[in-house]
Amino acid sequence: MKIVTLSVIASVALSASGLVQVADKAGLKSIPESTLELLKLTDNPKNPITESKVELGKKLYFDPRLSKSGLISCNTCHNLAEGGDDGVSAAIGHAWRANPHHLNSPTVYNAVFFDSQFWDGRDPDLEKQAQGPILAAPEMAASKEHVVSTVLSMPAYVDEFKEAYGDSVQIDYETITATIATFERTLVTPSRFDDFLNGKHNAIDKEEKRGLEIFIDRGCASCHNGIALGGSMSAFEVANKYKYASLGDFSGDKNSQVKVPTLRNLSATAPYFHNGAIWSLDEAIVEMGRVQLGLDLNRTDVDSIKKFLGTLDGRVPQVIYPILPASTESTPRPDAN
Amino acid sequence: MKIVTLSVIASVALSASGLVQVADKAGLKSIPESTLELLKLTDNPKNPITESKVELGKKLYFDPRLSKSGLISCNTCHNLAEGGDDGVSAAIGHAWRANPHHLNSPTVYNAVFFDSQFWDGRDPDLEKQAQGPILAAPEMAASKEHVVSTVLSMPAYVDEFKEAYGDSVQIDYETITATIATFERTLVTPSRFDDFLNGKHNAIDKEEKRGLEIFIDRGCASCHNGIALGGSMSAFEVANKYKYASLGDFSGDKNSQVKVPTLRNLSATAPYFHNGAIWSLDEAIVEMGRVQLGLDLNRTDVDSIKKFLGTLDGRVPQVIYPILPASTESTPRPDAN
Repeated sequence: MKIVTLSVIASVALSASGLVQVADKAGLKSIPESTLELLKLTDNPKNPITESKVELGKKLYFDPRLSKSGLISCNTCHNLAEGGDDGVSAAIGHAWRANPHHLNSPTVYNAVFFDSQFWDGRDPDLEKQAQGPILAAPEMAASKEHVVSTVLSMPAYVDEFKEAYGDSVQIDYETITATIATFERTLVTPSRFDDFLNGKHNAIDKEEKRGLEIFIDRGCASCHNGIALGGSMSAFEVANKYKYASLGDFSGDKNSQVKVPTLRNLSATAPYFHNGAIWSLDEAIVEMGRVQLGLDLNRTDVDSIKKFLGTLDGRVPQVIYPILPASTESTPRPDAN
Repeated sequence: MKIVTLSVIASVALSASGLVQVADKAGLKSIPESTLELLKLTDNPKNPITESKVELGKKLYFDPRLSKSGLISCNTCHNLAEGGDDGVSAAIGHAWRANPHHLNSPTVYNAVFFDSQFWDGRDPDLEKQAQGPILAAPEMAASKEHVVSTVLSMPAYVDEFKEAYGDSVQIDYETITATIATFERTLVTPSRFDDFLNGKHNAIDKEEKRGLEIFIDRGCASCHNGIALGGSMSAFEVANKYKYASLGDFSGDKNSQVKVPTLRNLSATAPYFHNGAIWSLDEAIVEMGRVQLGLDLNRTDVDSIKKFLGTLDGRVPQVIYPILPASTESTPRPDAN
């Protein structure tokens, strides 16, 4: 018995390490196991990650008082309890306005690994990205002045900025949003697929390995690659078949291309696509085969790919819900209009 | 030096224990230190608090999918990061509708100690209370069917209900809301004032003790008493001077009375009163003196009372932000209309 078992493991291990090589050639990368390696990939040399910035950034991320109404925080649309997004087709923000381009809120988890931010890829990093939605009229609808005055009105926040950046910190809109981005840089979710690529060859089972082979063989990895299995502007062309396919008027438009979304944590991030038009993962796989690869994927392939995608459901970092500094009499009043 | 210090402490301690007696006579009660004593006060014998119910109730409390839009959770208006409320004058809910009676969201912290729930005291306990806002059109706007179907659509939720209540659990609207209430029963915030009443005579300083004396002497404790320093329907008559004083049409109306709000955690729960009309704690104290006690409280009294009220800022229980079960294809779709 013992010898048989060993021989089985050896044969699986061999086949697995071959598969790891194939995945590597296809451009699939893992979230590294080593904290130091991970930090190299996620850190911003201009504004290095520190514990005090992350803790402060977390508070700001969850603070609805940064919005005009006092009711919408970053976490409203990028809810860390719900896969890092809001679970609705198109974002709804200030005064219940729907996103004018009917764009789906992308997940914040692993966004640090994206080549660029927003569906049209207009911003290079999370620091720049975080500046947008707080000011956007159909999102948090605030002004820079509102955000800065809100933070400055609470001594506890000012103290935390001093602790994070030193006493001479300039608490301006850029510093506030960069601090939010620092927190977001820590929101990575290593999964069984990473364990597999990192050498734990039994972290994914035989069917999932087969799914990975199909995923690569059918061409999915030609767009869904890198650590995020997505996150680049490389290939996704918006087909006319989507209800809200027209993206001609959204800022930074690049020939109606939208960014390739990450495939991590798909089980928690329906509905799918830039317009949140498809709720079923099976349908999403079929649709991508048809639109992007010109393939009619059969039932077996779809099941197989779906099994592989399940290995990308990650281990979410534990977040202690913050207790926010209390408003003071000089804190700007919420305005729901 | 040593003897002098000891004698000072002794004299303070004596005076403090006298003050504790006065506070007791005035009906001011502490949150007990002992977990067992606390459990006696907070538990529901018909549905005892257990760890698995609390953990499940926490998820449901934070789950926006219980609402019609998929965007509003209990925590939206009773935000545990913000003193257990939303920091706006009047609640805003589904489709950005303001509360039709311009009622301020009361804090969920220590609500377990209230004699009754809602501003008009129409519900006897948190179990009954939790049934209301989920269905209310200007709040979460859901139907019972929506809530039950949502929970039943996620196997992880079903498993947790079985774990909490046994395999034969009937997962109906009443069980779901009672589970939310069980979580809420744990949201108590012991403060320095409790430490003082529980025998730590130096937990509050001389000025705060003086504030407590003024608070009792001027009559504040005649309404603001019990563990919550409020929470009963006993006395508060809505005066005509409030902008939205008319409460004649809200359900369970009892001669235009609103419940006495708790005074715990006031620094985090502005704006004040049932209509959220007053943002400054100083003004709120002056107003209550005038309207309820027929007193023109002077600056010294107001400062002194405010100092005492600061001792009621409590230690908030640490909440690990939940990761919610993933929606499935049978989960009811969000409807923002």
